[in-house]
Amino acid sequence: MILKPIGVVKSEYKSRKEAPRQGRLKEDVSVLEIFEEYREGLEGLERFEKIVVLYWMHEADRGVLKAKPPGESERGVFSTRSPDRPNPIGYSVCKLLKIEGSKIYVMWLDAIDGTPVLDIKPFIKEIDC
Amino acid sequence: MILKPIGVVKSEYKSRKEAPRQGRLKEDVSVLEIFEEYREGLEGLERFEKIVVLYWMHEADRGVLKAKPPGESERGVFSTRSPDRPNPIGYSVCKLLKIEGSKIYVMWLDAIDGTPVLDIKPFIKEIDC
Repeated sequence: MILKPIGVVKSEYKSRKEAPRQGRLKEDVSVLEIFEEYREGLEGLERFEKIVVLYWMHEADRGVLKAKPPGESERGVFSTRSPDRPNPIGYSVCKLLKIEGSKIYVMWLDAIDGTPVLDIKPFIKEIDC
Repeated sequence: MILKPIGVVKSEYKSRKEAPRQGRLKEDVSVLEIFEEYREGLEGLERFEKIVVLYWMHEADRGVLKAKPPGESERGVFSTRSPDRPNPIGYSVCKLLKIEGSKIYVMWLDAIDGTPVLDIKPFIKEIDC
């Protein structure tokens, strides 16, 4: 189970400290730069208002099983949204602003600059809510 | 970027043909059997009604960039929910029924029997919808 990055995140957030706790709380714009070899896979994406972005939280600590959400007590990582977890796959529902070539402009993404993009899926309210 | 399975799916769906197009359309119960070494990470999960399950669609074809959703025309895989995609990470919002030890009983999961489980996160309506 080896992942292949399909692109990279360009973001104002340069470190984990700068990133918001949840991207949904901010209106900053991030860009997903999809690698040329995967561009064909984007065809038809522009019709969706929201997309699901999966990314690899490359600075995560994969060795912990407990986390302490801000203002809450420590508990198992799988009952938190902490980036530190065995498989640090980030998941964000993003607002799709525009697509220019292989650049996808989105809002609500909390990934930091340089984060590898793993997958993009259309958000479908009926099954995702 | 190498994934470590944290558990395995036990399901009535034994093949891709048997699985529903979307798990949300069925009320079948699946069980996530989490490996003992990751059990500690489940602490606190029982408080959530819905969870996000990430899994590895191990029978997927990773070499395709186009897909044809049923009844629709062919388009890029990233604008579809096809399991055949460069990084076949499945994503399902599931109803959490109960947790017994390291077994998690859920509804709405469309993964087939034997699917590796990658991650579990609490579903939080305010950021995931």
